[in-house]
Amino acid sequence: MKFTVGQVAQVLGGIVEGSASAEIASLAKIEEAGSGALAFLANAKYEHYLYTTGATAVIVSHGLVLRQPVATTLIRVADPYSGFSQLLEFYQQATRTGRRGVEQPAFMGESSTIGPNHYRGAFSYIGENCVLGENVQIFPHAYVGDRVRIGDNSIIHAGAKIYPDTVIGQRCVVKAGAVVGSDGFGFAPQPDGSYKAVPQIGNVVLEDDVSIGANTTVDCATLGSTVVRQGAKIDNLVQLAHNTEIGRHTVIAAQTGISGSSKVGEFCVLAGQVGLVGHISIANRTTLAAKTGLQKSVRQEGQVLQGYPAFPLVENQRSAVIYRRLPELERRVAALEKNAPAPEKS
Amino acid sequence: MKFTVGQVAQVLGGIVEGSASAEIASLAKIEEAGSGALAFLANAKYEHYLYTTGATAVIVSHGLVLRQPVATTLIRVADPYSGFSQLLEFYQQATRTGRRGVEQPAFMGESSTIGPNHYRGAFSYIGENCVLGENVQIFPHAYVGDRVRIGDNSIIHAGAKIYPDTVIGQRCVVKAGAVVGSDGFGFAPQPDGSYKAVPQIGNVVLEDDVSIGANTTVDCATLGSTVVRQGAKIDNLVQLAHNTEIGRHTVIAAQTGISGSSKVGEFCVLAGQVGLVGHISIANRTTLAAKTGLQKSVRQEGQVLQGYPAFPLVENQRSAVIYRRLPELERRVAALEKNAPAPEKS
Amino acid sequence: MKFTVGQVAQVLGGIVEGSASAEIASLAKIEEAGSGALAFLANAKYEHYLYTTGATAVIVSHGLVLRQPVATTLIRVADPYSGFSQLLEFYQQATRTGRRGVEQPAFMGESSTIGPNHYRGAFSYIGENCVLGENVQIFPHAYVGDRVRIGDNSIIHAGAKIYPDTVIGQRCVVKAGAVVGSDGFGFAPQPDGSYKAVPQIGNVVLEDDVSIGANTTVDCATLGSTVVRQGAKIDNLVQLAHNTEIGRHTVIAAQTGISGSSKVGEFCVLAGQVGLVGHISIANRTTLAAKTGLQKSVRQEGQVLQGYPAFPLVENQRSAVIYRRLPELERRVAALEKNAPAPEKS
Repeated sequence: MKFTVGQVAQVLGGIVEGSASAEIASLAKIEEAGSGALAFLANAKYEHYLYTTGATAVIVSHGLVLRQPVATTLIRVADPYSGFSQLLEFYQQATRTGRRGVEQPAFMGESSTIGPNHYRGAFSYIGENCVLGENVQIFPHAYVGDRVRIGDNSIIHAGAKIYPDTVIGQRCVVKAGAVVGSDGFGFAPQPDGSYKAVPQIGNVVLEDDVSIGANTTVDCATLGSTVVRQGAKIDNLVQLAHNTEIGRHTVIAAQTGISGSSKVGEFCVLAGQVGLVGHISIANRTTLAAKTGLQKSVRQEGQVLQGYPAFPLVENQRSAVIYRRLPELERRVAALEKNAPAPEKS
Repeated sequence: MKFTVGQVAQVLGGIVEGSASAEIASLAKIEEAGSGALAFLANAKYEHYLYTTGATAVIVSHGLVLRQPVATTLIRVADPYSGFSQLLEFYQQATRTGRRGVEQPAFMGESSTIGPNHYRGAFSYIGENCVLGENVQIFPHAYVGDRVRIGDNSIIHAGAKIYPDTVIGQRCVVKAGAVVGSDGFGFAPQPDGSYKAVPQIGNVVLEDDVSIGANTTVDCATLGSTVVRQGAKIDNLVQLAHNTEIGRHTVIAAQTGISGSSKVGEFCVLAGQVGLVGHISIANRTTLAAKTGLQKSVRQEGQVLQGYPAFPLVENQRSAVIYRRLPELERRVAALEKNAPAPEKS
Repeated sequence: MKFTVGQVAQVLGGIVEGSASAEIASLAKIEEAGSGALAFLANAKYEHYLYTTGATAVIVSHGLVLRQPVATTLIRVADPYSGFSQLLEFYQQATRTGRRGVEQPAFMGESSTIGPNHYRGAFSYIGENCVLGENVQIFPHAYVGDRVRIGDNSIIHAGAKIYPDTVIGQRCVVKAGAVVGSDGFGFAPQPDGSYKAVPQIGNVVLEDDVSIGANTTVDCATLGSTVVRQGAKIDNLVQLAHNTEIGRHTVIAAQTGISGSSKVGEFCVLAGQVGLVGHISIANRTTLAAKTGLQKSVRQEGQVLQGYPAFPLVENQRSAVIYRRLPELERRVAALEKNAPAPEKS
């Protein structure tokens, strides 16, 4: 997919200084861009790259005053960053997520429906009694079980698995290999010490604008629903256990695990490799630092916690400093003991 | 799938008080149930919900004496919890795991056999020389490599991958995206600092009644077998490395990792995000708290350990309390030093 | 697949003592080998097993002097370990990774090409404008997006997903369920506290001889490339975020996570469950112990670090010892305080 500098300028409503017929094949950072690439300059700090860049063209602002001659072609616009962002979205759409039509063989139960302008990749599977909206994209090897509902403009990437009865909102993205709706880890101990699986008949609900990372797992509820609320963004390899609830616009980084029935509030940020025990809840706007292990509910909003057990980040950092010099602290105590007056008999 | 209250009562051998013709479409908790749902009441603590529930019907005991009028229909049985459990299992079977037959296209090597009453989903793959038992269910996109054996009543969920030579017992469940039998992480360092892969030709054995979680990985042995013993339950995103062995009826929670050649005993409980180094073993009935890092073998049975390095949970909690006030402890030491008599010259 | 002892001896250039017509069906450790198995003896420490082994044959050195009669057949060679390794590789090739041809149905975009002697499993998917080399093996359910390039002798295992524009070198192995090239976790916060996805249009580059573990995730770069350099070996369930770079011949164990834009040097060893924050770099030949949490760049080469925050392993172990006896240390301080002279007024 190639465009001329002139075509790009026209889309952005920009003015070309240089060769309008030069061809653009990729987008790149100004400091890394080579021939065929288009870059942008929005921050004066990077201006020096403009005079040495290998980019075929650079988007700059109308107001930029050149201090040296440039080898690259310029596209002048009102707001270079916003113009470049437009191109990024266009490029992503054109190359990655703009597919339409049905590749064969693809499987869809007869009782299921899908709206117009959809994509169903080869080897994609859609079960029975599913209702999928318009512009929905189901990539190759994606599995969509019976009675699943998926809202408009949502994307199920290659090999993602959506178990039966899952409800997915609009503009959601489920990345490759994610598993949504697998049975919760519920086992009833038997008298002989063995375990019997407790039937898991609930489902998962992803509200609008939710993103689920690659190879992340979201278990269905035992009864009722595991819920990821509007706009929450879940990274790769995260575990959301049965009956958990993730609040609106909360962000959870990679490899974090939320145990059964725990609830995370709105606008929270959980860093990577965090763990929550089951049956607790976290107040809105809580931040948990990487690797935090949370054992108790957090009731006060807006805290930043770290550690295992978790307590405020600033305090934790102070303790960590002393942890490192514990051997010295112990020597100091030993020195005091050596020189202490003989203890009174108690 | 809908049933009348009368049909449900008949299955449970119960007595209807109210409308036997009302329709049931789902099962729910009494406090969450709405129209069309069937709930149960087994614990007196929840009795007040009986008078306000939106459930179409509630299973209660013969002996329950109503203290207020109820709007819902009652199904009276001897043991409400056990009756409801029966329905849960029936419902799960009917909606999730009761599939039979072969959807096309499905792939099976000519030399492989599968017992009666099986399910092979569209795009499922079974290699050559496999022997699969009766009632086995292979969901869409599941991959079963050559020479795999799977016992009766086992379920391989969507997109699970079973590498060649794996042996799976009866009544096992391998959840979506799990990988069983991938090559172990074995590399021989070369004189130039690079690594050469050591061939991994062993296999994985899952004994009867084993459950493997979604996107969990179980590596094959270098030689011999990686073994998960009878009744062990493994949660999502767990890593079992080459030549590990997990004992009977042991439970391992999400995101835990067991390094190569380590052995976990029977009736153990490993919480989430635990890690074991390689070549150690754990005695029976050991419990490891979440995020524990175990570096040495545990020889005494029945301990509860926590931390990294791991030591008894109760001790660990005491140290954790003081960790939090380390800055204060250091100030106390400094105060003592300030007021201490001048140390003797040593 | 069976061979006679005589055939094996011929391949290895060895001399048979015993029955050359006995049949070999598997390879095993000398202490575990049963009938039909071939074992080896390279280390004098294991010689006693030679006299009790159930192996049908054992590879030994020309120089070995028997101290007792043996029931097993011997194959004498110059270097038993190296001979056995040859057989392991041959066996792995014959049983696991030696497939050729195309199983139907398989999907390949018309504009894509693949070199001679390849394998494309049933339900494998190759998009448009891909260039795949010779001896490439694409297992069932593997997904290869548009414009992907894969070098000679590389193997994409069952259900691995390779996103569009990924570049994979020669002799690479991508294990089952791994996801290479999924969108990075980049979201721009909006004024109302919600997040908007930042288009991710970069790619992933795996250089030659790279191994990617089962269910591991490697995100594409926002712009430019996420890079895994030559010979690096990545274990299962690892997260490599957008724009990360892993140096040549570096080894990363299971469940480790590298945050966005961080760079790991050459010949490093990262143990399991390690975590790195974003935008840091690690010097060559660094070792990070299991569960280490690294928050700052490591500039000095060759260090061994542990903990969170990370500091040298030896120091960390000393602090850990005292951590365990913190309650005792606090009691000692309290005892000193009790017996201390009254502090001067400050």
